[in-house]
Amino acid sequence: MSKPVRIALDGMGGDHGPSVVVPGAARALEMNPETNFVIFGDEAQLRPLVAQHPALQARTTVVHTDVAVLMTDKPSQALRRTRRASSMWMALEAVKKGEADVAISAGNTGALMAMSTICLRMMPGIDRPAIAAMWPTLRGRSIVLDVGATIGADAQHLVDLSIMGSAMARIVLHIERPTVGLLNVGTEDIKGIEEVKAASRILRDGAIPSLAYHGFVEGTDIGKGTVDVVVTEGFTGNIALKTAEGTARQIGEYLRTEMSRNVMSKIGYLFARGAFNALRARMDPRTVNGGVFLGLDGVVIKSHGGTDALGFAKAVEIGFNMVRHGLLEKIRDSLAQSDESRSAVAAEIDARA
Amino acid sequence: MSKPVRIALDGMGGDHGPSVVVPGAARALEMNPETNFVIFGDEAQLRPLVAQHPALQARTTVVHTDVAVLMTDKPSQALRRTRRASSMWMALEAVKKGEADVAISAGNTGALMAMSTICLRMMPGIDRPAIAAMWPTLRGRSIVLDVGATIGADAQHLVDLSIMGSAMARIVLHIERPTVGLLNVGTEDIKGIEEVKAASRILRDGAIPSLAYHGFVEGTDIGKGTVDVVVTEGFTGNIALKTAEGTARQIGEYLRTEMSRNVMSKIGYLFARGAFNALRARMDPRTVNGGVFLGLDGVVIKSHGGTDALGFAKAVEIGFNMVRHGLLEKIRDSLAQSDESRSAVAAEIDARA
Repeated sequence: MSKPVRIALDGMGGDHGPSVVVPGAARALEMNPETNFVIFGDEAQLRPLVAQHPALQARTTVVHTDVAVLMTDKPSQALRRTRRASSMWMALEAVKKGEADVAISAGNTGALMAMSTICLRMMPGIDRPAIAAMWPTLRGRSIVLDVGATIGADAQHLVDLSIMGSAMARIVLHIERPTVGLLNVGTEDIKGIEEVKAASRILRDGAIPSLAYHGFVEGTDIGKGTVDVVVTEGFTGNIALKTAEGTARQIGEYLRTEMSRNVMSKIGYLFARGAFNALRARMDPRTVNGGVFLGLDGVVIKSHGGTDALGFAKAVEIGFNMVRHGLLEKIRDSLAQSDESRSAVAAEIDARA
Repeated sequence: MSKPVRIALDGMGGDHGPSVVVPGAARALEMNPETNFVIFGDEAQLRPLVAQHPALQARTTVVHTDVAVLMTDKPSQALRRTRRASSMWMALEAVKKGEADVAISAGNTGALMAMSTICLRMMPGIDRPAIAAMWPTLRGRSIVLDVGATIGADAQHLVDLSIMGSAMARIVLHIERPTVGLLNVGTEDIKGIEEVKAASRILRDGAIPSLAYHGFVEGTDIGKGTVDVVVTEGFTGNIALKTAEGTARQIGEYLRTEMSRNVMSKIGYLFARGAFNALRARMDPRTVNGGVFLGLDGVVIKSHGGTDALGFAKAVEIGFNMVRHGLLEKIRDSLAQSDESRSAVAAEIDARA
């Protein structure tokens, strides 16, 4: 039996706080029994909830704080107002101090990113953080990054995103050498932004051992699952992710409207209920809940703020797997193996500057 | 009765060339009988097809050329190789010479954009072209631009896109003062790219009479139909559009798979066939086919290259409406009315430079 994974939870994060975090942790524990939790937040709310789950209670420490980051706080506000006393900060600090292996929060994304960067610092050799999302595709799942940690990216950062995303893909998709595509407005070499073209040249020539560079991919390729890892800068990535979410919701809405339009369609719905349930399960955003922060010297998972216990449990499960399968070591190894290519990037950027 | 709209068609454009263009024109003529066509291309292919549609034949001139732009041509190649002899160029030239009111092509987008810009020139006061797409939403339809004409945008261009998109919305959506949102990674004022924030300030303070500025919108807002006009630069817009297309296709595929999984679901499908047909119609990309080129001194419509006759007819219908309801005049008027705000943009940009 391996050592339990120690998970620090921001007990107050998200739209529903402890009422989702605690039952979410309980479900996650069922999936991965070798987990210990430390939950930070208001003990008056947390303890009675934890007590409802004896298995969880046996493996959980509750650490009290009455300071919480609000969903409406701007990152700078959150830092100033809550100092180092918020449940979010304390969860990160547990990782920093080596008391936990991963921090998980459903709270304010901007605040979590800012606090993570300050508390855990960047991994040596990486300049900027990223958020990687899992994306359900026709082929299974892909990883898309950056979905909104930072805006804009030079060639260096796009290459780093490729390396970090591949390390995560090796864990999530169980693929030794994941395929990587750079998101662009066309697949021809001449198209797109200068930074994306430069990153493409590096990835093509660089022969980075930990990934198989596919070339450019377009928006339609994400859902097809053309590549295992889709790389783009945070502005475009965030908009692509949210546009896809919006489209899925829109079609779900169309489907509901049409299936309840008349008696025939309602009868059809009853017969095909199993199929609709399967469809709903496939489109369930909870199954891919949990954005992984990459580039930090520590593992941090961001759960969707509005999710329920099942969704939160999925985010915890991702955190568990990232620790169990050594995300940070995998990234460090890949970076070390790609030193040459990364120096080539730097040289090319300098040459153009 | 008003004057017929004179439509110039690139007869050789698209994946299927004349076999889609001609029957597409015939269908469009049924929708809008006050149309005259001039179709450029290989007369040996075009004439027999036109002859199959007597009503179309009566209102169509075929002009022969055996030069065609290939779907695989790069824009510069297309310009060099085909000179001014291609069916695409000749359709644009007909507009330039005042012999047609609008040019429509299902051909190579990059080549069409390059040739349009050279042949028709920019509208005075506008620096760069844009492509506006119609986007089906839960509230009806919205206009999204730029979906890929140019990459990157300063505040000036984003304000111009807002004005041009609103002019188009007045025609397509029959709204006197359309709502406009700037696509961003969050709705708070502090988020996003500097250019987007600057454009937002101008639009908020500028009181441009032809549009109602809503503020920032996110990717999820597009499908919701939060605003009539969604404005973004071409890289992000193209990726958002294609990501949504990919997601719709993906969910359609899931639905097909689930509905044919077992006997019960197949029976359900039979009962609800009417509902599924209605759903398919709602999701049919042909109904929103036809990207409108904006910013040029002439009306040009780009049809999807892979569409069929019905889809091409929709693109022709958009072209018809743009002419009939005076797109160019509406843009010119809106620009004139917004002179003050646009000068403010220029001043602000200069101040920061």
